[in-house]
Amino acid sequence: MKTKQYRNSRDDFKIAKAPTFVEDSSKDLKNVKKKIKKNVKRIAKAQAKLYARHEYSILLVFQGMDAAGKDSMIRHVFSGVNPSGFNVANFKQPTPEELNHDYLWRVTRKLPARGHIGIFNRSYYEDVLVTRVHPQILLNENLPGVHSLADVNDKFFDERYKDIRHYEDHLTKNGYVILKFFLHLSKDEQKRRFMARIDTPKKNWKLSSSDIKERHYWNKYQDVYQKAINATSTKDNPWYIIPADDKWYSRLIVSDIITKRIEELPLAYPEMTPAQEKELGVAKQLLDDEDKY
Amino acid sequence: MKTKQYRNSRDDFKIAKAPTFVEDSSKDLKNVKKKIKKNVKRIAKAQAKLYARHEYSILLVFQGMDAAGKDSMIRHVFSGVNPSGFNVANFKQPTPEELNHDYLWRVTRKLPARGHIGIFNRSYYEDVLVTRVHPQILLNENLPGVHSLADVNDKFFDERYKDIRHYEDHLTKNGYVILKFFLHLSKDEQKRRFMARIDTPKKNWKLSSSDIKERHYWNKYQDVYQKAINATSTKDNPWYIIPADDKWYSRLIVSDIITKRIEELPLAYPEMTPAQEKELGVAKQLLDDEDKY
Repeated sequence: MKTKQYRNSRDDFKIAKAPTFVEDSSKDLKNVKKKIKKNVKRIAKAQAKLYARHEYSILLVFQGMDAAGKDSMIRHVFSGVNPSGFNVANFKQPTPEELNHDYLWRVTRKLPARGHIGIFNRSYYEDVLVTRVHPQILLNENLPGVHSLADVNDKFFDERYKDIRHYEDHLTKNGYVILKFFLHLSKDEQKRRFMARIDTPKKNWKLSSSDIKERHYWNKYQDVYQKAINATSTKDNPWYIIPADDKWYSRLIVSDIITKRIEELPLAYPEMTPAQEKELGVAKQLLDDEDKY
Repeated sequence: MKTKQYRNSRDDFKIAKAPTFVEDSSKDLKNVKKKIKKNVKRIAKAQAKLYARHEYSILLVFQGMDAAGKDSMIRHVFSGVNPSGFNVANFKQPTPEELNHDYLWRVTRKLPARGHIGIFNRSYYEDVLVTRVHPQILLNENLPGVHSLADVNDKFFDERYKDIRHYEDHLTKNGYVILKFFLHLSKDEQKRRFMARIDTPKKNWKLSSSDIKERHYWNKYQDVYQKAINATSTKDNPWYIIPADDKWYSRLIVSDIITKRIEELPLAYPEMTPAQEKELGVAKQLLDDEDKY
């Protein structure tokens, strides 16, 4: 699969032209699942090296409309990796303590440690998405200089985009490899999935009437996603636009991209220095000597 | 006192020309202490408004050579403020957990909440100071691309300065007012204070032989302080160069600067909206009605 086609460069993303569905003659379900399974094994293998090498961290950011498949993506693609050295952070409505700090504070606290893989299920991008669709949210945050809706203008969000680029740039220099996925869903497919949540008792908990209300803002959300993605796709920290109407196929694309990126990293097991090798020799000798007594 | 003279602008700081001692005919000790006391009261008064208004946070960064008077500065200038709404974070040698993240992670976790005053006793600036004097420290941090001393070059630190400017810029937009103080001590005065620590039993704990060893690097420290201060003094987030050979006078200068800055902020108590006033009326009515039964 050519994963590069899903990678977006700065300022060239037109959301209305990006497909939510891909025709692919090879995508029978059994074949797709088999390929995902292979990718998961390769990711798990690379994870062991990532952990031993202790130099890079992987940060995977998942964004998308409600029902785009974020939760099930995480469940299916990462069930095979080693849970120690792996962490998922789900960002929902901020708590009062979180709102008492800048919007990067709560995500910084959840960054994966060196050598780990971390997932952000939603992220700091919500602070330029839901807040841009509903700017009145920001009026309740007591930000300096933000006292009326007129203050929440293009310049305000341009500054946030810039801060986010700077933030990711700093993380990159400190060993974070950041991959950002936009699960791109069609409005019709969202409706089908919402219907299924209503009709399937064990899925009922996933739906609230506020989800339906947010559908009224569909076009506005598409617009702010396009703006945010264009402003924050960089060479080091790209956005990948994933057609998400077919859940299994979207998982395959995502797992392909992660596998390729993680295997590109210089992840040889750490080389032993002469001093460390000597120490290993001493350890061996001590173990051998145990048998003598 | 003209506090402005202590404020440094970008790229014009010459550490060798900055005084560590000020002649001032009005500085008898009694008078200095009285003025500090007045400042502490004014800071405490402003703090109450800062807390009620819940829009700005104050971040005070203290840096300086060993024995420059950071701890006693904090004790003397801030003993009068309300401890809730106030927090001191002391940054010492990073823990293994802290080293497993980028160097801004541990300080971000300690940022004061909105409406609070926070003090950083040493800070993220150590990551461009002690690490620049002893670059081998960085070789143990497993940073990507940092595998030999040749990798810890000017460019490496220029990138860190830039990241720090970006970080502070982001914080400013989110309500942080950052004041950075360099307590500028002479080498002779440090020697006198170290001697006092040796001669005074209850001060013994403050001195270790490694402190004496660091004196060998005095000139190198002066150089990296000059570089860091020049690269990170900005209009919004200035450095103040405080002559620190006279402890009480340095406390007066610092308390003057903080008092002026905090009183410049738009810190009126929050105005009540008509809805809130109506609610207050209802509350009053309820309390009045209690007496009827």
